[in-house]
Amino acid sequence: MQATAEFQLIPLGAGVSVRREVERVVALLRSRPLLTETHASGTNIEGEMHEILNAVEAVHKALHAEGAVRLVSYLKLETRTDKTPTLAGKRL
Amino acid sequence: MQATAEFQLIPLGAGVSVRREVERVVALLRSRPLLTETHASGTNIEGEMHEILNAVEAVHKALHAEGAVRLVSYLKLETRTDKTPTLAGKRL
Amino acid sequence: MQATAEFQLIPLGAGVSVRREVERVVALLRSRPLLTETHASGTNIEGEMHEILNAVEAVHKALHAEGAVRLVSYLKLETRTDKTPTLAGKRL
Amino acid sequence: MQATAEFQLIPLGAGVSVRREVERVVALLRSRPLLTETHASGTNIEGEMHEILNAVEAVHKALHAEGAVRLVSYLKLETRTDKTPTLAGKRL
Repeated sequence: MQATAEFQLIPLGAGVSVRREVERVVALLRSRPLLTETHASGTNIEGEMHEILNAVEAVHKALHAEGAVRLVSYLKLETRTDKTPTLAGKRL
Repeated sequence: MQATAEFQLIPLGAGVSVRREVERVVALLRSRPLLTETHASGTNIEGEMHEILNAVEAVHKALHAEGAVRLVSYLKLETRTDKTPTLAGKRL
Repeated sequence: MQATAEFQLIPLGAGVSVRREVERVVALLRSRPLLTETHASGTNIEGEMHEILNAVEAVHKALHAEGAVRLVSYLKLETRTDKTPTLAGKRL
Repeated sequence: MQATAEFQLIPLGAGVSVRREVERVVALLRSRPLLTETHASGTNIEGEMHEILNAVEAVHKALHAEGAVRLVSYLKLETRTDKTPTLAGKRL
């Protein structure tokens, strides 16, 4: 089923600036069959729930493979059955 | 000290659509001495930490005064001492 | 890879009390090959990252199948490569 | 008005282990007129909303004064008007 989501990842022990990791996360999300919109606090996502969850797993695995020692991520996931959830429909 | 933040509020028992409450939250945030940017999953905020926390309290009180029975809010708050945190500085 | 997590689900439009849905979420999580610990604000989880993400998907699908119209869930997911992450290791 | 909350703080650039900072946060929260319950993913809090928000501000200020360069915190805040919210009432 389709879902909308918001994702943010924080690497621990990676220094005060985490821009490199954030850019990597966004690149990984964009490489998946998902609609993504970055903003100052995270990335909003629209797509199949299963693809979103696959992307979360892929992001954790990729960043660890590239050297990250500890990762904390936050996923907010929204689903509904009365209409198809979209990022466009959630904007004011 | 200056901070950046992300705020989202969910009213429980308010029906499947919560657009009216979300619009009210954004209007309340914009009435405060804060920089705000709405997106599909919440509102990003820049301003004095104390003003941000005051705004959170004001939002809960206002929505209850207007009839909301139960509210859950999520505040992500970022502060740093190496430079002044801004929403602009957090965008990719 | 093993992960620790925290999960919370909020049904929108389900009334002021959401205890029935929360109990259903916890029962569903406990039916999976995961270690779970409930607390006043959610459920902490330890297990394979893939199993945790599968459980999140199963919870959304089950609650919709049982009538929930709109669901918002929050998943915090932690992974690390320097040692096996456990809930026991995160307690003070 | 009384509220329940969950609080978690992550120091960026503080190393892979953040136990020292987490213990400091819990000690600071316990020094305030609040009921606190720690668990593997954060600290649950019960008390006056204003005191909870004051505590969040005090925690950020104290950790920066003690040397932390960058802090991200997550506060979930719940209020309701149909009954007094308590941590005990939220447990399963």
